[in-house]
Amino acid sequence: MYFASDNTAGIAPEILAAIGTANTGYALGYGNDEWTRRVEAKFAEIFEREVAVFLVPTGTVANALAIAHLAPPWGAVLCHAESHIATDECGAPEFFGGGLKLIGLKGEGAKVSAATLRAALEGGQWGGPHHVSPGVLALSQATECGTIYRVAETKELADIARKHGMTVHMDGARLGNALARMNVSPAEATWKAGVDALSFGATKGGAMGAEAIIFFDAKRGAEMQSRRKRGGALASKHRFIAAQIEAFLDGDLWMRLARHANAMADALAAGLTKAGCKPAWPVEANEIFAPITLEMDKRLKAAGAMYYPWPAEGMPKDRILVRLVTSFQTTSDDVERFLAIVRS
Amino acid sequence: MYFASDNTAGIAPEILAAIGTANTGYALGYGNDEWTRRVEAKFAEIFEREVAVFLVPTGTVANALAIAHLAPPWGAVLCHAESHIATDECGAPEFFGGGLKLIGLKGEGAKVSAATLRAALEGGQWGGPHHVSPGVLALSQATECGTIYRVAETKELADIARKHGMTVHMDGARLGNALARMNVSPAEATWKAGVDALSFGATKGGAMGAEAIIFFDAKRGAEMQSRRKRGGALASKHRFIAAQIEAFLDGDLWMRLARHANAMADALAAGLTKAGCKPAWPVEANEIFAPITLEMDKRLKAAGAMYYPWPAEGMPKDRILVRLVTSFQTTSDDVERFLAIVRS
Amino acid sequence: MYFASDNTAGIAPEILAAIGTANTGYALGYGNDEWTRRVEAKFAEIFEREVAVFLVPTGTVANALAIAHLAPPWGAVLCHAESHIATDECGAPEFFGGGLKLIGLKGEGAKVSAATLRAALEGGQWGGPHHVSPGVLALSQATECGTIYRVAETKELADIARKHGMTVHMDGARLGNALARMNVSPAEATWKAGVDALSFGATKGGAMGAEAIIFFDAKRGAEMQSRRKRGGALASKHRFIAAQIEAFLDGDLWMRLARHANAMADALAAGLTKAGCKPAWPVEANEIFAPITLEMDKRLKAAGAMYYPWPAEGMPKDRILVRLVTSFQTTSDDVERFLAIVRS
Amino acid sequence: MYFASDNTAGIAPEILAAIGTANTGYALGYGNDEWTRRVEAKFAEIFEREVAVFLVPTGTVANALAIAHLAPPWGAVLCHAESHIATDECGAPEFFGGGLKLIGLKGEGAKVSAATLRAALEGGQWGGPHHVSPGVLALSQATECGTIYRVAETKELADIARKHGMTVHMDGARLGNALARMNVSPAEATWKAGVDALSFGATKGGAMGAEAIIFFDAKRGAEMQSRRKRGGALASKHRFIAAQIEAFLDGDLWMRLARHANAMADALAAGLTKAGCKPAWPVEANEIFAPITLEMDKRLKAAGAMYYPWPAEGMPKDRILVRLVTSFQTTSDDVERFLAIVRS
Repeated sequence: MYFASDNTAGIAPEILAAIGTANTGYALGYGNDEWTRRVEAKFAEIFEREVAVFLVPTGTVANALAIAHLAPPWGAVLCHAESHIATDECGAPEFFGGGLKLIGLKGEGAKVSAATLRAALEGGQWGGPHHVSPGVLALSQATECGTIYRVAETKELADIARKHGMTVHMDGARLGNALARMNVSPAEATWKAGVDALSFGATKGGAMGAEAIIFFDAKRGAEMQSRRKRGGALASKHRFIAAQIEAFLDGDLWMRLARHANAMADALAAGLTKAGCKPAWPVEANEIFAPITLEMDKRLKAAGAMYYPWPAEGMPKDRILVRLVTSFQTTSDDVERFLAIVRS
Repeated sequence: MYFASDNTAGIAPEILAAIGTANTGYALGYGNDEWTRRVEAKFAEIFEREVAVFLVPTGTVANALAIAHLAPPWGAVLCHAESHIATDECGAPEFFGGGLKLIGLKGEGAKVSAATLRAALEGGQWGGPHHVSPGVLALSQATECGTIYRVAETKELADIARKHGMTVHMDGARLGNALARMNVSPAEATWKAGVDALSFGATKGGAMGAEAIIFFDAKRGAEMQSRRKRGGALASKHRFIAAQIEAFLDGDLWMRLARHANAMADALAAGLTKAGCKPAWPVEANEIFAPITLEMDKRLKAAGAMYYPWPAEGMPKDRILVRLVTSFQTTSDDVERFLAIVRS
Repeated sequence: MYFASDNTAGIAPEILAAIGTANTGYALGYGNDEWTRRVEAKFAEIFEREVAVFLVPTGTVANALAIAHLAPPWGAVLCHAESHIATDECGAPEFFGGGLKLIGLKGEGAKVSAATLRAALEGGQWGGPHHVSPGVLALSQATECGTIYRVAETKELADIARKHGMTVHMDGARLGNALARMNVSPAEATWKAGVDALSFGATKGGAMGAEAIIFFDAKRGAEMQSRRKRGGALASKHRFIAAQIEAFLDGDLWMRLARHANAMADALAAGLTKAGCKPAWPVEANEIFAPITLEMDKRLKAAGAMYYPWPAEGMPKDRILVRLVTSFQTTSDDVERFLAIVRS
Repeated sequence: MYFASDNTAGIAPEILAAIGTANTGYALGYGNDEWTRRVEAKFAEIFEREVAVFLVPTGTVANALAIAHLAPPWGAVLCHAESHIATDECGAPEFFGGGLKLIGLKGEGAKVSAATLRAALEGGQWGGPHHVSPGVLALSQATECGTIYRVAETKELADIARKHGMTVHMDGARLGNALARMNVSPAEATWKAGVDALSFGATKGGAMGAEAIIFFDAKRGAEMQSRRKRGGALASKHRFIAAQIEAFLDGDLWMRLARHANAMADALAAGLTKAGCKPAWPVEANEIFAPITLEMDKRLKAAGAMYYPWPAEGMPKDRILVRLVTSFQTTSDDVERFLAIVRS
């Protein structure tokens, strides 16, 4: 009953196997290998267009490098106030971006609404010499609250951003989960909806440690190889990062794993709702935010269930909001045992 | 006959197995796992003292983070002009260090001599408000030319550095190879000789992608966790980096692998010397720089041997200097075949 | 009727004269001159303690350098959301601070309350590896809304900050105006109330371009000379910056100028209040934020009055909030003419 | 006999007067004033083309901002190893440039030769992902050794730079002195010879503290206003910086002052040569590097002459190399007294 985070899961068997398979003979380092070439081709296929691909070892560095490449140091990054880049990366975007400024917007379920974005851009003080300029709109897909941006929403937000001279970054640490829910293609959810650069996450989805920065206009990625290297994010035995992603993409493994995690989340959400603990936000990916009673919390903890409380205002005194994250590794049995304790 | 670099080798079988073994069940992310705790304890044992350990995915980021933690932005990093941090990391130390300045010193075999260091520190313009201040002495062990600093040399350099208010960093991407040659303990070659922080390399030695930053005075590592995270170098599924290092250290695997690589280098050097291609610098680790004839080069290339030319002045017209790097994966057969072609 | 900003005023005659007087003979550059020594001594006298003093040409760079010196790159700077450093310096603190993060707190009249500060520090996510750490509390004295922190308020805020391991910076671009209002000594309002570093402003007060960074614990200023120089803020003909400050401090000129500006503000506020335009916040320094009617605005503009509108919510439809700033140069006649037009 | 530096001189009377004249009434801050507009127009006239002009208070920040605007963080700045940006700005270019790397080239008289530049660009390791890329060629006019780049030399260097994708910056802290010597127009010596951006110095030439960054292709200056502000270098009472430069340019004052300083240098050089102390490098601007005897040094010091020793190799034991700098303020009498002591 390990629902603390999807990064507490291990490596999907197919991906572990791929690392082993790649471990034969020699290969040039730093991405000059056939695995990397195949991954690049695969991404072009998946996204139905030429793309520039840069593999890196962590999601933090994927986000920070991508954003730094999109925005000048005086460019503001508009994002949700609770987004991962704003709260959980210890200032990585600011560091990589030469001191750029993140501007946290409010919004239910960790989503930025078109109205909020518009108000921020039209109402604030921007540019001149004195103020930072609108630089990047950064969206998380899925969000910190497990909600998702529908294609039309992304499109509307991206249109507003573009109107103000901004580019659009998507933190896709859980992109698969969002796509699985919407049943739309990767292309439709990203560049066709106005996204310029994507942090394509594989680690949370089942890899050991492998992420991809994708520029949909390949020219935007110019000089990114220099930025990645000096950012300490160019792996020397690069084939093993590429091999992970290749396996992740191969035969749509990533989508199958995401669908499984989502299904587990749905089952958990359904059971919790039935037990009077309706999730605070729609369960659209692999995260559930449920207001359980202190009693339930006690029983679950006693039984060894792992999860974190989530800050929430306005909770009844006898309840706390908890975050439950499912993963490719979550089993129906985990879910059933958890729900049984909730109900008991 | 793959002598292009030690990072063209794969993963040592013991390390690959350890990744697989670690892939059971769940573990908290970001280093809150038992593998990481064991690695920390193991390093304390190996270095015979309390140490602060920070695992990271690449050698570049290990060097850059460590140096940035040792030097303020106005601190100069004195290093060999041909050292990896000066020439091959695309400015990573400068970026992570907030714009610090690397000052490249000359020296035979990529080694900084005490006389050169002393001259630089006593002769130059330092501090004031106008000049950068002596910050860090950065030594590579082994060096870019495959030579090593003997314990007494390290100690003398570190003493000079300390006298000028500097700290000492050691880039130990190939530390095992150097230790194997000198037959001294890790402690003797590092903190007992005046080293303050070490980039302990495992990737080139046989890991997939795992390095450790080690502060010998644990207090020096204060706040490094923040710097590492905002530097994009904190792995979420951290246990798999720890598991690699654990296996690397376990039963002195790292030293066995290093000794093997060194032995292969020795065999190659002996054969080349016999064939009239005496290495340019003493072969003290796993790198040979040999002045082969253009004829040999042609034959070797034709046979599929992989290696890089190395810039060199004063070569005879019919020869080029080439760099040959052995690794844990190099076989006697590789060496014999290579030498046979040289001799033919 | 020039109320657009206090930086639209010129140079106070005594200060201009001092520049001329300093223009005799030669003086070593970069602060190695007698004017600078005298200014340092004068600041020690004014603040009743040893201080470290660094003169710089702009207020922006004074704030940015001071804050960067107090906080590590992963240190958060808590300040009012409308403070100058947060909104009007185009990200200078972020740039000089290596990508540190400003966290804007709400509060009436651009003041941070103890309750708000406490809530932010106790409620938020701080430190760990994932979150930035509390670094600096940055207060503006007077604030962007012309209000001031009373000594007891500063002390309470500083105590909270210190309890959380933070240091305290004060942006004293208009310190004289605040001191004049409170009738307390510079020492009481700053270090005795817990302030660690001060941007002492002279430019807005009457100088041509001269500011001082003051560290109350002189040891905190160690290495600031390096940071200032590499920050591009060490003037070569430094005596002329020092001469400005010397004249500003001499015979308490700065306090006389501030008292005059405050008196002009009071007269303006009284007249506006009488005319039904009571200022939105207490007029405690040299700024008035008055809700004038659109009619008045039209008449004033037609008569050539200069001032800026100020963003405000909840204004009646027929009024706008305008900011009026007085300076040492404002005359009673300016005020009377302005009020006459308001009343007409 | 004050020959320590040209920044030990005061303010030229015409410039001091202009500050006083500008001190009437009110003017909007931050460059929104008529003085600034006139200076911009004047520069366009002087350089015979549209230019983008940014006034700043120090030469250090002018150089650092300009270079940061021309080069990405992974761009190398090739400059002379003894140039001001490399040795005397405490790492300002590295800081403003996000950690870019300065590569110091050798060359007699602090000049970079075409052969040296070509060798550095053709021989070194550049780009890839691993190496920094050629970014900016930075020339000092006049150089640290008081020599100058003739138009043809600048042109040849700029052509090489451009061939390698670089842009060209000129540190013109003493541009007037160089132009006066060559008797060429500002346009011929800069953009017509391939210079992209210029730090136009006025402080050393006679101003109190005023420099201009000039982009010859005005489009290159896009967003420079943001960089300048966040770099802490936008003066609030901007008219007084503009007024200094206006007076400096008006009626070719800058050239007259430079010619005077050069003439004083020539007289000093001639006298020293006659006295057996032939300058080490051609005296082409306002600096003389003369190998005086220890006896002369003793007599000069005793008489109160001010100057600095200059590091030099291969001096006879009874001599030291000293740097003598003349300025607009140097008098024939100063020169004569100095020479009389030398000869005595």
